[in-house]
Amino acid sequence: MRLPTPAAGTEIAGLGHAEASRLMDNHELEGMMDTSDEWIRQRTGIVTRRIADGQTVADLATDAARHALEDSGLPAEAIDLVVVATTTAEERSPNTAGRVSAALGLGADGRGPGIMDVNTACSGFEYALGVADQSIRTGSATHAIVIGAEKLSSVTDWTDRTTAVLTADGAGAAVVRPSGTPRIGPVVWGSKPALADAVRIGPPSGTFSQNGREVLRWALTDAADHARAAVERAGLALADIQVLAAHQANLRIIEPLADALGLADRIVVTDVTESGNTSAASVPLGLSRWWHAGRIPEDVPALLFGFGGGFTYAGMVAMTPRRG
Amino acid sequence: MRLPTPAAGTEIAGLGHAEASRLMDNHELEGMMDTSDEWIRQRTGIVTRRIADGQTVADLATDAARHALEDSGLPAEAIDLVVVATTTAEERSPNTAGRVSAALGLGADGRGPGIMDVNTACSGFEYALGVADQSIRTGSATHAIVIGAEKLSSVTDWTDRTTAVLTADGAGAAVVRPSGTPRIGPVVWGSKPALADAVRIGPPSGTFSQNGREVLRWALTDAADHARAAVERAGLALADIQVLAAHQANLRIIEPLADALGLADRIVVTDVTESGNTSAASVPLGLSRWWHAGRIPEDVPALLFGFGGGFTYAGMVAMTPRRG
Repeated sequence: MRLPTPAAGTEIAGLGHAEASRLMDNHELEGMMDTSDEWIRQRTGIVTRRIADGQTVADLATDAARHALEDSGLPAEAIDLVVVATTTAEERSPNTAGRVSAALGLGADGRGPGIMDVNTACSGFEYALGVADQSIRTGSATHAIVIGAEKLSSVTDWTDRTTAVLTADGAGAAVVRPSGTPRIGPVVWGSKPALADAVRIGPPSGTFSQNGREVLRWALTDAADHARAAVERAGLALADIQVLAAHQANLRIIEPLADALGLADRIVVTDVTESGNTSAASVPLGLSRWWHAGRIPEDVPALLFGFGGGFTYAGMVAMTPRRG
Repeated sequence: MRLPTPAAGTEIAGLGHAEASRLMDNHELEGMMDTSDEWIRQRTGIVTRRIADGQTVADLATDAARHALEDSGLPAEAIDLVVVATTTAEERSPNTAGRVSAALGLGADGRGPGIMDVNTACSGFEYALGVADQSIRTGSATHAIVIGAEKLSSVTDWTDRTTAVLTADGAGAAVVRPSGTPRIGPVVWGSKPALADAVRIGPPSGTFSQNGREVLRWALTDAADHARAAVERAGLALADIQVLAAHQANLRIIEPLADALGLADRIVVTDVTESGNTSAASVPLGLSRWWHAGRIPEDVPALLFGFGGGFTYAGMVAMTPRRG
């Protein structure tokens, strides 16, 4: 049996995002539950978040994919793999990746892309990016779009002030293509199954609930070790890392994580303050918003690190795109 | 940036399955809708199917994983990646792979496996097996369990005689490990986004519906080409293939597909007659049931080929395990 010649490596060729239609500030939440702007800012750092009004997860994913394609300069027809990380897909079949492919007009020649939805909750985007990188490196794809897309508002208990103040909707995407030298490092992924119930979205309520203290304790202990492992696996040192894009769970987790890694003096993406927690979408959404705002330099090592329900984590180093 | 040295290849080290608890024959369906045993046999080949009673998708997945581990002779602790292909997960977080990992007692040492749910409907198992193979080959995992698990009964419209006679529950699993020579060929995956609505499970009904004629037309035309491509990509010829394990959609699709491929005189898995259509579970369930019944020889090339909602397909050649 024969295997294709592996590609040397891959790179992120472009980033894109889609914002949900409606801006919701903390004052609006004050009218819905016993909370306050001050309390939310103090405990989470969140000032505003966006909520989808009339947009599906597939709509957000499609818009983010279009934006990333535009940023990459590649034509949609080049894409032969679409991977969507989502925990809140509306449909079970077709999957979200199939909806995105149809909306982008892919496969009109009868040769549509591989389409895959991946659910690993808040670390889903890093799992999906790992899958796309591996697929290109092993020759099962040439150009991929990797999307994180969520409508957490659809699984939010709007009477629970511990979670409703966090959740938001949105999508982010990256175009991945072959590279003569590796510009995406190997994914490091794992889990802590003993904490399977620490972050839940499922029956009977169907809504999001979590043991915030457990998540915080994990983030301040194990998380830094796993993030360090992702840097080491890429043959780099923390001193090389210029950008930290961690899951935008809560500013009170991101800041101590940056401190623990000794990265507080680098560019630390804190998009959670404006966009809230969008689960699998948060890393590409934050990265793309800051990239397109000119807040992230080209061609520097960024540490992407997701963590959340499962309990799971995944991360890798990726070079930021080169500006065309 | 550095990448790990790729592994030469991977192999399926063991197969396992879990049957849903309750046997349902065609006569039972006669009492529920306007149908008959004769009509069902003629149109689908299905004689019996199994329905889960008190078992979750995660329960079925766990039992299949245990069985596959036992068959492989590997200890559960060796597993550092769990990929579950499912379209009918009960929970959004933790994912099914996380539930399986917790049930198997993985990660007690604090280093739990990568956990990923993949949804590509009826071709999900082949996508997931491709992901596991690529992960091991690129050094992000060493030993994986790949599971297809479904409870289609939970999304069946039991008043729709065109679909209710097909659907069933169950799970199948494969343990994948490194191999000195490649014994799993490269995955070939793709889609036909124009047929995104041909097989649906989603709002508003939440139940399974399909345009059976569209699926059949696709299966009798494009499907054979894609299955052939999977054989060619592995550097083999159809003459080498000893076993065909295609998605157990319907005997009236499997038989013409085997004919079109010139494989009708080989071992063609037709487990659909006993187990019904279990979507992403059907290929590993059928393969494992026949393997453990001694109907599949060791160490021969098998063509695995999934297809379904998206509209999507994926396939690869895999050598059957060597009997310990």
